[in-house]
Amino acid sequence: MTETVSIGIDLGGTTIKMAIVDQQGNIVDKWEIPTDTSNNGRNISQNIADSIKEKTENGGWKLKDIDGIGIGAPGFINMENGFIFHAVNLGWKNYPLKDDLERKTGLKVVVDNDANTAALGEMWKGAGKQASDLICITLGTGIGGGIISNGTILHGANGMAGEIGHITSIVESGAPCNCGKTGCLETIASATGISRIATEGLEENLSSMLYKKWIEKGRVTAEDVFTCAAEGDDWANEVVKTITHHLGLAIANMANVINPSRIVIGGGVSKAGDHLMAPLKKVFGKYALPRVHVGADFAIASLGNDAGVIGSARLLTLRNSN
Amino acid sequence: MTETVSIGIDLGGTTIKMAIVDQQGNIVDKWEIPTDTSNNGRNISQNIADSIKEKTENGGWKLKDIDGIGIGAPGFINMENGFIFHAVNLGWKNYPLKDDLERKTGLKVVVDNDANTAALGEMWKGAGKQASDLICITLGTGIGGGIISNGTILHGANGMAGEIGHITSIVESGAPCNCGKTGCLETIASATGISRIATEGLEENLSSMLYKKWIEKGRVTAEDVFTCAAEGDDWANEVVKTITHHLGLAIANMANVINPSRIVIGGGVSKAGDHLMAPLKKVFGKYALPRVHVGADFAIASLGNDAGVIGSARLLTLRNSN
Repeated sequence: MTETVSIGIDLGGTTIKMAIVDQQGNIVDKWEIPTDTSNNGRNISQNIADSIKEKTENGGWKLKDIDGIGIGAPGFINMENGFIFHAVNLGWKNYPLKDDLERKTGLKVVVDNDANTAALGEMWKGAGKQASDLICITLGTGIGGGIISNGTILHGANGMAGEIGHITSIVESGAPCNCGKTGCLETIASATGISRIATEGLEENLSSMLYKKWIEKGRVTAEDVFTCAAEGDDWANEVVKTITHHLGLAIANMANVINPSRIVIGGGVSKAGDHLMAPLKKVFGKYALPRVHVGADFAIASLGNDAGVIGSARLLTLRNSN
Repeated sequence: MTETVSIGIDLGGTTIKMAIVDQQGNIVDKWEIPTDTSNNGRNISQNIADSIKEKTENGGWKLKDIDGIGIGAPGFINMENGFIFHAVNLGWKNYPLKDDLERKTGLKVVVDNDANTAALGEMWKGAGKQASDLICITLGTGIGGGIISNGTILHGANGMAGEIGHITSIVESGAPCNCGKTGCLETIASATGISRIATEGLEENLSSMLYKKWIEKGRVTAEDVFTCAAEGDDWANEVVKTITHHLGLAIANMANVINPSRIVIGGGVSKAGDHLMAPLKKVFGKYALPRVHVGADFAIASLGNDAGVIGSARLLTLRNSN
């Protein structure tokens, strides 16, 4: 008897990443297809079904060897019935993803939030090292957060748990956030936030390396900030200090409440490595309770773009074991 | 066959509250004994055992009808083995409470943190209304916090989860906290914190009602602050605004991460009722994500001093059902 495999899907606004994952969390095969957001995303689930059919017909996989599909999707989701209330990037509103995809593929489908599946992937096979109390923070264009507590994803009362990016970090006159509030952590410590803060201060830092970068290419990125900071640029270092202060304080406040054993930082900004992590850990140590501080290790996410598909496949294993 | 009952114990620095609780969470009998903190608290567990023995001998209870003892204790605890690392108020350091009390009573013992058992009590029989995602905050001399997620207590990696009182609310020049940090929520929104803030501003508010109170009795309490605020005193209202701002912001930030369906506020300060709750809900609504905001109801704790014993008894029912 062949051991069954799962299909893990990471549904993004540009591409749909798909993988066949074995019961141990190893990727056996992976591929991606473009996300067709035309017509309010109505073709997406058919495209997924077609792609799986093609893979099973041409890739030597049989439907009976596949125990189901796990999907990490963006937006507001009812995890119980896989109903998407709203996913702006895909055009979906009140869309029964689970039911629709089960009908089109004949396979069992489990849906969760993409930040949660990334956390689950890192816990299972990555930097989370199977910690049963884990916070995973993805610093990309926005900030995603997933919390694992006692080995399972924290969903909260209506699937909103883990919205770390929307902790209010600046109470007065903070920058406007996509969520409608102002001063959210996402407006500061996401790649977009870091670039904004660095750019806004350029006028007063005309002799900085960052200003030179801006002259050269018309913008400064989060990556530029960390590169220039490492080379000793004062303004870049000030930006790093500001953003790690807010990020470290928010993580410490959250850790005083969640008490994680592992804090995993991923996303594009985490590529800064120790230039981000060293000041971040210092701020964390200042604001976390001593016992919370000693109990928590920091790590940079290690699975990169594979975290989503691996974590999505894991959804299915978890559901089967219940 | 008689249905078994549980003994619930709320272990405080001054009194030990004890109750016999039935399987439905009703208190059948309750009593208390003074906490003997002499000799580093070494008599406490013998006093508890003696008191239970007396109750079973004289109260018509038989040991075989009692399925065990649940205890909510203060301090740092290993919930798995009931080992107390440190409980300052009781004098305990590295004390195996569970093992010792099991030996002395012949009954099964389950130990948890007293803020967690209060939360569990309110969830089971009080204002928590059996919500499976609940935050319970006790505003007393200090601030206690208990979080129920998916129906079970959130403990975290080393039993520190729920330390809401030690969220850093004032980053620079905050008041010193007992935990060693500064600017913790506990230094602001506990009864002690409210009294401190009100008193510190009296010099600049000599025409206030609060100053008159201070002249009369040499101090102003949290209760005075809410009473004078309700009567229109400007300084008292300013204090209420300050403390509800910090408390509401901390709860909103936490709710964005936990996504509770119910937020229960207890402790002496909660007796202020709507004078506390109305401004608090307003601040919460400003900083919580819209979906988190609509998903969360506020309530004042309804069990008073009974929350601890009821929640402690519940520990046993939960353990038995696993």
